Amino acid sequence: MVLVGTQEEGNIGAAARAMANMGLSELILVAPRQGIGAQARAFAVSAGAILDRATTVADLETALAPFQRVVGTTSARGRALGRVPMAARELPAVLAADPPATRTALVFGPEASGLTAGELALCAPWVYVPAAPALPTLNLAQAVLVVAYELFLAEPDTTPREEAEPLADQAAINGLFGQLQPILEAVGFARDGSFHTVLRDLRGLASRAALDAREVAIFRGICRRAQGLLDRLTQSEGAGESP
Amino acid sequence: MVLVGTQEEGNIGAAARAMANMGLSELILVAPRQGIGAQARAFAVSAGAILDRATTVADLETALAPFQRVVGTTSARGRALGRVPMAARELPAVLAADPPATRTALVFGPEASGLTAGELALCAPWVYVPAAPALPTLNLAQAVLVVAYELFLAEPDTTPREEAEPLADQAAINGLFGQLQPILEAVGFARDGSFHTVLRDLRGLASRAALDAREVAIFRGICRRAQGLLDRLTQSEGAGESP
Repeated sequence: MVLVGTQEEGNIGAAARAMANMGLSELILVAPRQGIGAQARAFAVSAGAILDRATTVADLETALAPFQRVVGTTSARGRALGRVPMAARELPAVLAADPPATRTALVFGPEASGLTAGELALCAPWVYVPAAPALPTLNLAQAVLVVAYELFLAEPDTTPREEAEPLADQAAINGLFGQLQPILEAVGFARDGSFHTVLRDLRGLASRAALDAREVAIFRGICRRAQGLLDRLTQSEGAGESP
Repeated sequence: MVLVGTQEEGNIGAAARAMANMGLSELILVAPRQGIGAQARAFAVSAGAILDRATTVADLETALAPFQRVVGTTSARGRALGRVPMAARELPAVLAADPPATRTALVFGPEASGLTAGELALCAPWVYVPAAPALPTLNLAQAVLVVAYELFLAEPDTTPREEAEPLADQAAINGLFGQLQPILEAVGFARDGSFHTVLRDLRGLASRAALDAREVAIFRGICRRAQGLLDRLTQSEGAGESP
């Protein structure tokens, strides 16, 4: 990551954090207006190591010397510089076509003005972050994040997935509905011909919700309690009747 | 965009700028630790109008009442909360399947801790920003940007939709749980300390299922019947007691 002429050290820190978030670590500062001080460290939060290892050079040519692919960023889609930038999302496919282990630089200009025409001439492709026409200019660290995020997502995701509660099987859900239906009838919910539609809709809802085993157990517990209550009521009212 | 318990006003300003970059404009602050001051305005840059129009409310339920789809964000893929969050990139497809003009909230928790389990129970789906395992926690405004960016990039889906029942708003779902809780207590389902977890899980299920208005009406009808039954039982058993 190459930041050219950065004006605010806070942005350098925030960019370092964004880099760490997206698995990047090598930061080169070209003639920054402010050094790396307390504010940069505050914005970097846990990414201070990237600031510690950052190198500072006097000009862009020096910074870019070791790189084989130099990607330039620009917020101006429409600048009459003779080349149309591509959306950040298209970048991974371009880089993936490079030979393996190609050393690649991502270059960002100063906050206010971006890379100059001369600087962009050192870069290909040019990349922009799509944004709303009413306010198309992103904060520097935000732009760094989006470009890094697109590259990060293009990496195959090998993080092991969290174990989730297993989904309930249909037998358990059938059991639930076997308990539920007599309760709904007993409380007077089956008064008219629409009851079967209600049951079908509830069943459809259960499918859509993809109930897990624990949730079905909760509902069956509620049904057991409700049935117990109904039994008590029947007894109680039965006892009150005159013979 | 709903920001809950935001600690740093600078993050509110930066989030407003990110929203403007991605064409969003409605900001709701839930119990922020700091008001909107000079620092928020400095970070918002040209997006001050979003701060001017932002509303501040005391609790999340109030903020969410008008919304029909509530998307929760979490940085923790691995939290043992029983539901696996989806990557931000998958969100547009989920929202595109909602009925047209569904009022949608994107909810972000405080910087340090994120949304609580109880707050996440009000949300579905849960979304995370994929990031490097070594530093997976993004700055709040950075996370806001990525989620908004994914929605911004999603092509407007012009496929004519099936006429669907509108999703229930949170006010209706709150009403349902207001009826349900005393019934569960009355039938003896609140015997031990796990009852609040059960309620939270049921609430989480209601979010995940994206209940429509008709389904909520069915459940509220069932609750009314159940409450009527309980009232009869109380009367009946009361009548049977010896004086």
